[in-house]
Amino acid sequence: MGIFFNRVTIIGVGLIGGSLASVLRGKSLAGEICGIGRSEENLQKAKRLGLIDYYFCEPSEIFPGPPLVKGGLGGGIYSDGVRDSDLVILSSPVGTFLKIVKEIGTSLKKKAIVTDVGSVKGDLVREIEEALPEGVSFVGGHPIAGKETSGVEAASGELFKGSKCILTPTDRTAKDTLEIVKSMWEEAGSDVILMDPSLHDRVFATVSHLPHVIAYALVNTVARMDFGETDPLSLSVRSFRDLTRIASSPPEMWRDICLYNRVNLLNSINSFEEVLKTLKGYLEKGEEKGLLREFEEARRLKENS
Amino acid sequence: MGIFFNRVTIIGVGLIGGSLASVLRGKSLAGEICGIGRSEENLQKAKRLGLIDYYFCEPSEIFPGPPLVKGGLGGGIYSDGVRDSDLVILSSPVGTFLKIVKEIGTSLKKKAIVTDVGSVKGDLVREIEEALPEGVSFVGGHPIAGKETSGVEAASGELFKGSKCILTPTDRTAKDTLEIVKSMWEEAGSDVILMDPSLHDRVFATVSHLPHVIAYALVNTVARMDFGETDPLSLSVRSFRDLTRIASSPPEMWRDICLYNRVNLLNSINSFEEVLKTLKGYLEKGEEKGLLREFEEARRLKENS
Repeated sequence: MGIFFNRVTIIGVGLIGGSLASVLRGKSLAGEICGIGRSEENLQKAKRLGLIDYYFCEPSEIFPGPPLVKGGLGGGIYSDGVRDSDLVILSSPVGTFLKIVKEIGTSLKKKAIVTDVGSVKGDLVREIEEALPEGVSFVGGHPIAGKETSGVEAASGELFKGSKCILTPTDRTAKDTLEIVKSMWEEAGSDVILMDPSLHDRVFATVSHLPHVIAYALVNTVARMDFGETDPLSLSVRSFRDLTRIASSPPEMWRDICLYNRVNLLNSINSFEEVLKTLKGYLEKGEEKGLLREFEEARRLKENS
Repeated sequence: MGIFFNRVTIIGVGLIGGSLASVLRGKSLAGEICGIGRSEENLQKAKRLGLIDYYFCEPSEIFPGPPLVKGGLGGGIYSDGVRDSDLVILSSPVGTFLKIVKEIGTSLKKKAIVTDVGSVKGDLVREIEEALPEGVSFVGGHPIAGKETSGVEAASGELFKGSKCILTPTDRTAKDTLEIVKSMWEEAGSDVILMDPSLHDRVFATVSHLPHVIAYALVNTVARMDFGETDPLSLSVRSFRDLTRIASSPPEMWRDICLYNRVNLLNSINSFEEVLKTLKGYLEKGEEKGLLREFEEARRLKENS
C-alpha cells in the first residue's frame, strides 16, 4: 500500500527536516511541502534547494526559549502553516514541541497526523498527546541518523538509508497512523523499530545522552587542568578526538534533551560513576587482575555488539 | 646530516615496531634489522614481509607478565638479539620495558642507543635510565599514531606521516643521541615534540588514558543496566560507538599503561568526576543556564582546538 500526503508541513527545516523533505520529494510522497522556521535565510535556502514549496517564517522567541517554560504564542504563523496539512513533522529542538503543539492544535484538520524526530520521548509524548485535540493522531519518532554537518544545506534523501528509526506508539496511537508513519520511514530506507516511549528514554539516556554529557565534561576537564605552556588539545590524540567529537553538538539542543530526560540521565550518570569508582578502586590498590577483568569484559561486549 | 645504523634491534614487532622497520628499510637507514618477539609466527610474518632480516623468539613469560613485577630473565635470547646493535627499539608492552632493559644491559655495545615507543614515560624513563649501563644512551619516545588494526600485517612505512611524535629527553640524555632519534622520527614523517617525561604523563593521563578508562567504563555501564529484551548496543547509536570504539583496545596493554601512570590517571579521573558532578548538580536542579554554559564552553574549546 503506497502512501501519499496532499500537504506536509515541516517545522524546523534543518538537516533532519530537510532530508525528510528530500525523501518525500524523491519518492513523490507529497503534493506540496510547507516549511516553518525561525530563519528566513534558511527557509529560502530550503526553497532554492527544492525541498519546500513555500514557507512561513517565525522569528519569535519560540525556538531558543527555555525548554520547560509553557505558554502559547502570539502570532498566527504556525496556525497558517499547518492548516490543511495531512502530516505535520516536528523537527525543531525538542524544547519547542509542546509550545508548538499547543499553538497549532486548533488549526489542524481532522485526521491530521503529527509526528516528530526528537531525541526524547517518554513524558513528552504523553504531554503532546494530551495537548492535541481529538481526531488528531500523534506518533513519536526518533531517526538514529545524523552527521558531522548540520543545517539544510547538508540535507540529503540518502541520510536515513540503512539507519534505524524508532517509533514510540502508545495506547492512544491509531493503528493506521502508525502504519503510515512507519511506511514513510521505510520509504526513507530506515529500519523501523517500535519501542515504548519510557523505555526509549531509558535506553537513550545511557547510549546517547550520557555519552554527550561525558564528551562535554571531558573537554572541560582538560581545559581546567594546568599543563603550563603545553596545549593538550593540539596533540591530536585520536582517543581524545573520538571521545569529544560530539562536544561540538549544538549546546541548546543538548541542554533541552538532557533536561527533558534528566531523571533517566541522572540515573545513567550514577551508574557510570559506580563503574568508574570500581576502576578507581583497582587503580588505587594496584589490583591488576580486577582492572584487567573490567577491561576484558568491556572489550568482549564491544566486539560482540 | 643523514643517519645510518649498521644494526637495529626491534623488540616487539607489531604495528608500531613493524612500521618503524618499514621506515628504516624504505629510507635505507639500517644495514640489518633484527626482530625479537614472543610469537614465532609473527616474527616469520615480519621476515616474509621483508621488515626484519632475522629474529630471536622468546616465548617466555616476559611479555604477558604483570607490569610491576621485577626480575631478570632466564634465557640469553635478548642478549644475543641486541649484541652489536647501534639502535634498540622497545616496542613491546610498556610493562616489559624494565625487565628487558635489565636483561640486555650488559650485552649492549658502548654508544648503543636505546629508545622506546611506549605510552608512559615519567618514572619509567628514570627507571630505564638507571637500569642501563654507563655509555648507553636512552631517549624516551611516544609516537601519537595507531589505527583500528594491530599486528605486523598492518604495519606501514606511512603510519607516522603527518603525525606527532613526542620525545622525552632528561638531563641524562646525550645531545647527539637525541638528535639521532629525532632525525629517525622526522624521516618517518613525524612532527617531533620535546616534552618533560613527567609532563608527558600528566598530559596523556588526561587526553589518552582517561578517555580509555571512560570508554571501558561506559561499555560496562550499559551492560550492567537492565533494558529488558532491548539490546542497546544493537541500536548503533553513533555517539555511543564513537565513545566506545577504543574499548576494543588490548586490555593487557591498557592495564599496564593505566597502572604505570596511575597517580596521574587517578588525578585526571578525580578532575573529570568533579566536572561531571557540576553537570549533575545543574541537571538535578534543572539549572538551564549553568548546563548551557558548560556545554557552550566545551563546544568553544573543541572548535578552537
